Amino acid sequence: MTQYDYDLFVIGAGSGGVRAARMARQYGAARVAIAEEYRVGGTCVIRGCVPKKFLVYASEFAKTFKLAESYGWSVGKPTFDWEKLIAAKDAEIDRLSGIYWRNLSNSGVEIIEDRAVFEDAHTLRLVKSGKTITAGKILVATGGTPFAPTDIEGHEMGVSSNEAFHLETLPKHVVIAGGGYIACEFAQIFAGMGSQVCQVYRGDTVLRGFDDDVRSHVHEELVRSGVRVITHAVFEKITDLGDGMKRVQLSNGSHVDADMVMYAIGRDPHVVGLGLDKAGVELDGKGAIKVDAFSQTSVGHIYAVGDVTNRVNLTPVAIREGAAFAATVFGGNPTAYDHNDIASAVFTQPPVGSVGLSEADARKAFAQVDIYKTSFRPMKISLTNDASRMLMKLVVDGETDRVLGVHIVGPDAPEMIQMAAIAVKAGLTKAQFDMTCAVHPTSAEELVTMKEKWSPPELKAAE
Amino acid sequence: MTQYDYDLFVIGAGSGGVRAARMARQYGAARVAIAEEYRVGGTCVIRGCVPKKFLVYASEFAKTFKLAESYGWSVGKPTFDWEKLIAAKDAEIDRLSGIYWRNLSNSGVEIIEDRAVFEDAHTLRLVKSGKTITAGKILVATGGTPFAPTDIEGHEMGVSSNEAFHLETLPKHVVIAGGGYIACEFAQIFAGMGSQVCQVYRGDTVLRGFDDDVRSHVHEELVRSGVRVITHAVFEKITDLGDGMKRVQLSNGSHVDADMVMYAIGRDPHVVGLGLDKAGVELDGKGAIKVDAFSQTSVGHIYAVGDVTNRVNLTPVAIREGAAFAATVFGGNPTAYDHNDIASAVFTQPPVGSVGLSEADARKAFAQVDIYKTSFRPMKISLTNDASRMLMKLVVDGETDRVLGVHIVGPDAPEMIQMAAIAVKAGLTKAQFDMTCAVHPTSAEELVTMKEKWSPPELKAAE
Repeated sequence: MTQYDYDLFVIGAGSGGVRAARMARQYGAARVAIAEEYRVGGTCVIRGCVPKKFLVYASEFAKTFKLAESYGWSVGKPTFDWEKLIAAKDAEIDRLSGIYWRNLSNSGVEIIEDRAVFEDAHTLRLVKSGKTITAGKILVATGGTPFAPTDIEGHEMGVSSNEAFHLETLPKHVVIAGGGYIACEFAQIFAGMGSQVCQVYRGDTVLRGFDDDVRSHVHEELVRSGVRVITHAVFEKITDLGDGMKRVQLSNGSHVDADMVMYAIGRDPHVVGLGLDKAGVELDGKGAIKVDAFSQTSVGHIYAVGDVTNRVNLTPVAIREGAAFAATVFGGNPTAYDHNDIASAVFTQPPVGSVGLSEADARKAFAQVDIYKTSFRPMKISLTNDASRMLMKLVVDGETDRVLGVHIVGPDAPEMIQMAAIAVKAGLTKAQFDMTCAVHPTSAEELVTMKEKWSPPELKAAE
Repeated sequence: MTQYDYDLFVIGAGSGGVRAARMARQYGAARVAIAEEYRVGGTCVIRGCVPKKFLVYASEFAKTFKLAESYGWSVGKPTFDWEKLIAAKDAEIDRLSGIYWRNLSNSGVEIIEDRAVFEDAHTLRLVKSGKTITAGKILVATGGTPFAPTDIEGHEMGVSSNEAFHLETLPKHVVIAGGGYIACEFAQIFAGMGSQVCQVYRGDTVLRGFDDDVRSHVHEELVRSGVRVITHAVFEKITDLGDGMKRVQLSNGSHVDADMVMYAIGRDPHVVGLGLDKAGVELDGKGAIKVDAFSQTSVGHIYAVGDVTNRVNLTPVAIREGAAFAATVFGGNPTAYDHNDIASAVFTQPPVGSVGLSEADARKAFAQVDIYKTSFRPMKISLTNDASRMLMKLVVDGETDRVLGVHIVGPDAPEMIQMAAIAVKAGLTKAQFDMTCAVHPTSAEELVTMKEKWSPPELKAAE
């Protein structure tokens, strides 16, 4: 391998690329470089999970102030300063990106602040510097980008989540296209901060892909939190009304006026202009890099991890794929990362935690599926007239008693699901959940004390 | 059994007694009664877990208002109305007690609002009504009461947690004796509401019985939250200073002045005046009713569950003991409740979640113990200069890789530990924790991503 400039060249310093580069060094790869055209940290740190969660934290306070009144507190009329929040958030993102940078650097990875594109299967060109380098192994970890439509009139007046993190002022009226997790999260972020928010979704219930009870629960909570949700509609045309206002014409004949128009209708693998064709790297029908279980592409020495492969597009998955790649290629330990039972969270208000199979998927795969579910008012709001509810649901294989899925909507659901995921991943049974003593008073105790199988209403009526 | 008035008579309508009575009815016991001298619901609902958690919620808001400023919010100077809180709390407790009452009643249990004491092994006298009844089986579920010292001068000027829930006004200066969970919880409750709080503890670190890292972490956070903690000292004398102020003389020669003096130095099994001697029921050296694994006392037809047996004094344990009793005696299914790996929470600020063995206990029982631990600033406060930290610790059997204990101090620890307890109870290994994909960004993800074994500093230095 000494005929190449680098043993490993990683394109993209996001979660997956950074982990892979550092671990390759730990396994003894001598010459490892990573190219990043924007900022070290990737979507997660720079314009995804981390800044998003700060905005969620910020927007939750409005509800908290209201809640405090029920507990005897008076706070007058709170005011909110968007610019102050964004400055604090940006300072923290800078700090975190710096930590990523130093960790990379300290592990002996050469950081190249440039865009790298393929010239051929072993050769990359650095776009800014014009330099050309070669590498024995190449890892593509370029992530994804928000999908922006170009086929509707006025589409250029809309922004994506990328820009939403850097607005100069808080918009007064927001209209968001999409029903996925990013759309729902931003709808409640802006609603919490005081914006009027309208969310426009093609389907009839948000969060496609999640368990149906989770979907309807989140949908109801979105509406309860003041978001106007328009279903069965899409954007048809955007026109400029002047003074920063835009009018969005919808497919159902109505229109929505807003000073911020946002698309959150999906993300694409970030492959444009990478020159993958010159390297012979194949894409799938959705434009993602095709990889096998070891993240190897159609070209033997080129690998890809993270969102650019469009498997499970989550930061920790990219990290584990990156680690598995390094173990496989530089650690002498072929490792195929197991994509089953990966828990995920949605930071709606209240948030979602979900792991394993939805009820619908379980019913497709298993002969007998038992459902246990409950919904209740969280204790913290029981002194108020807030009608928000918490949902807990277990999907169980009726034949083996194995817990196939856990689905939670409510405060702290992401923290709970992380721990529940250990049990689901290990294949524990409902009986093992029930053997666990409750911790009182918590919300999570409901998950170990659900005794009655849920029956569909029609069965209940027949009983 | 028809020669008795009741098949089952339960003394005490707290968590354990209520569960036992209802389940006995479900198993077919025809004549079941429960006597309660105070209010249906027991310590947990009336003057324990539930009202305590409402006070904790209330007291956390002060910190939240401060936190909000770092997120761009301004709230002016918040004010707090203790009476409003107590009224709201009491209304909710009334509602919950009513639910317990109705559930009991609807299940066919006769509720007797009276104090029942033994006349002989099958006969009980109802103190208020003067009536005498007989029962085939008797369950003692009278719970516990705060221990109040009587051997120091002025002891009658101190209150217990019972009274702390019903103070007419918020005390300005509070001095609390004790270092257990109740003392720590109340110290931070009052501190959060704006009282000056001094906690006086005989030992050197609070929360005896918990993992040592948990203890020192909570101790530091107590101090950080503004509680003045005086260690190696006890109350020696209380004198009345007039105007509602008292002076507490400490064993270390100093004194503390306060308008509220509170004892939280332990709880005793509630057996005084019950006439257990007339029935021949034996107590242990600490005054708790002696029971076997099936909660059977020294008298064959008399059983006891919950705090009065001083096993693991937690609501859910009393409930499970009550259920096991009913299954054993009325369900034809002898059931010994397994007291291992019971998770518990302490609602300090931040709270504690703990399950399984402490490091010290594990080192006594296992030849090789691996420790994994980390402490970090929770993301929510990373925009602030709040130096509070979160602790996560895993205690692992080095030989089998089994996770023996999980210990968490930090936001949402009680919710996390409930779910982690499923894994610990099922005997899962550290490798099974690590196989679980992280959920990002959460705090709990640290528990599935701890790679390096902790070494004591002296070992590290030698490496």
